[in-house]
Amino acid sequence: MSDTIVTAAMIVIGDEILSGRTREANAHHLARVLTGVGIDLREIRVVGDDKAAIIEAVNVLRARYTYVFTSGGIGPTHDDITADAVGAAFGLPVEPDPAALAMLTDHYARRGQEFTAARRRMARVPEGAVLIDNPVTTAPGFLIGNVHVLAGVPAIFQAMLDNVLPSLRTGRKLLSDSIECPFGEGVIGAPLGAIQAEHPDAIIGSYPRYEDGRHWAEIVVRAADPSVLDTALADVRGMLDALARGE
Amino acid sequence: MSDTIVTAAMIVIGDEILSGRTREANAHHLARVLTGVGIDLREIRVVGDDKAAIIEAVNVLRARYTYVFTSGGIGPTHDDITADAVGAAFGLPVEPDPAALAMLTDHYARRGQEFTAARRRMARVPEGAVLIDNPVTTAPGFLIGNVHVLAGVPAIFQAMLDNVLPSLRTGRKLLSDSIECPFGEGVIGAPLGAIQAEHPDAIIGSYPRYEDGRHWAEIVVRAADPSVLDTALADVRGMLDALARGE
Repeated sequence: MSDTIVTAAMIVIGDEILSGRTREANAHHLARVLTGVGIDLREIRVVGDDKAAIIEAVNVLRARYTYVFTSGGIGPTHDDITADAVGAAFGLPVEPDPAALAMLTDHYARRGQEFTAARRRMARVPEGAVLIDNPVTTAPGFLIGNVHVLAGVPAIFQAMLDNVLPSLRTGRKLLSDSIECPFGEGVIGAPLGAIQAEHPDAIIGSYPRYEDGRHWAEIVVRAADPSVLDTALADVRGMLDALARGE
Repeated sequence: MSDTIVTAAMIVIGDEILSGRTREANAHHLARVLTGVGIDLREIRVVGDDKAAIIEAVNVLRARYTYVFTSGGIGPTHDDITADAVGAAFGLPVEPDPAALAMLTDHYARRGQEFTAARRRMARVPEGAVLIDNPVTTAPGFLIGNVHVLAGVPAIFQAMLDNVLPSLRTGRKLLSDSIECPFGEGVIGAPLGAIQAEHPDAIIGSYPRYEDGRHWAEIVVRAADPSVLDTALADVRGMLDALARGE
């Protein structure tokens, strides 16, 4: 059991999310994958296609967390400004990468399509970046410093994430279990808070559910240490049993 | 046609989003509603149940945008820390609000339920806050300064948002239209960028689609002025027609 804590943040880039035209579709996937390998996703920011906003988010978050993952803005059109903004955040020039150019040249040649100026934009990365393979449409993502720059199209985002996952340091993996609680949060609030106070190494969350006029709650207990998890869960179950007996 | 720009940010609060246990369900709704009334949502941040993280997000974003909306963390359990964190961000004490206490006392009395200490927590708001009515489960949200503190449960978030909407200043409403483009972004990239450069008052976005091995794109044009929108749209259509003729 690792006790190292490895952290991450995500930056979702795109006007279409903030205008409500498109529903964001990568954050939940990233959260699940990172949690599964023992990386704590600590923050998600959604910013528009705005260079200053991207630069600020990249520089704040890369200094604060082990890893940063971005999604969106690496296509061939004028509103795809992520590579330039990330380069600017690092103070690095953004230039065509020879390996990316070669891959894309080959890709379009095989398809009998012109390697247009717009398509050439997708080979541009900050100086020193490492390419991230895109098995879906070839145009690569890249890693610069601790910032992984991935595509916004979900199938490509997921494939790129699969490709970088083996290279990530991972840490403490939080074990998790949940208990369906038949009582509303107003009933369990005080005793659950007392259980949390007695188990500082567990993270106890309560998630209200309201269905058909009935309140109930899902209680989620998380801990890195299985014995901490088990004793906290046992205390929660004991509390619920006592409530059920009307105590 | 208003030319005032009114801006907003959202703060989503909850460990369960960052761990991937729960899929965030309010940001897309808020984005659509705000866009519809002429408020530009500029940024979304997701933070955990962490007081320092909430305080930082509230203080950065309330200084930067016309309005801030938060979702989550206002229930009766120990992990609901939003009211305390928002109070701390404003340097205000957080105390039970007499009107909220009265509403909740009445609510639980009518249901024959005990008004527990945990339930009393839901009456606590920063000093001077204005309550936001919750027609679903009574426990109110609140407005302090320019920060609207709303529930995380989607049905309650939406009802609270409906209640505050008439009180919001609204501004420039961006008109929007989209064109289905049969060409991939690599084909339209350069001419579309030229059209954007010719129409600085329009915002032209291109959203790649990749289905069944075929690339196409949705081109979205937004502008506050209908004549700007129409001329930019006409230029995009003209460009696509020229491409279709093989020019």
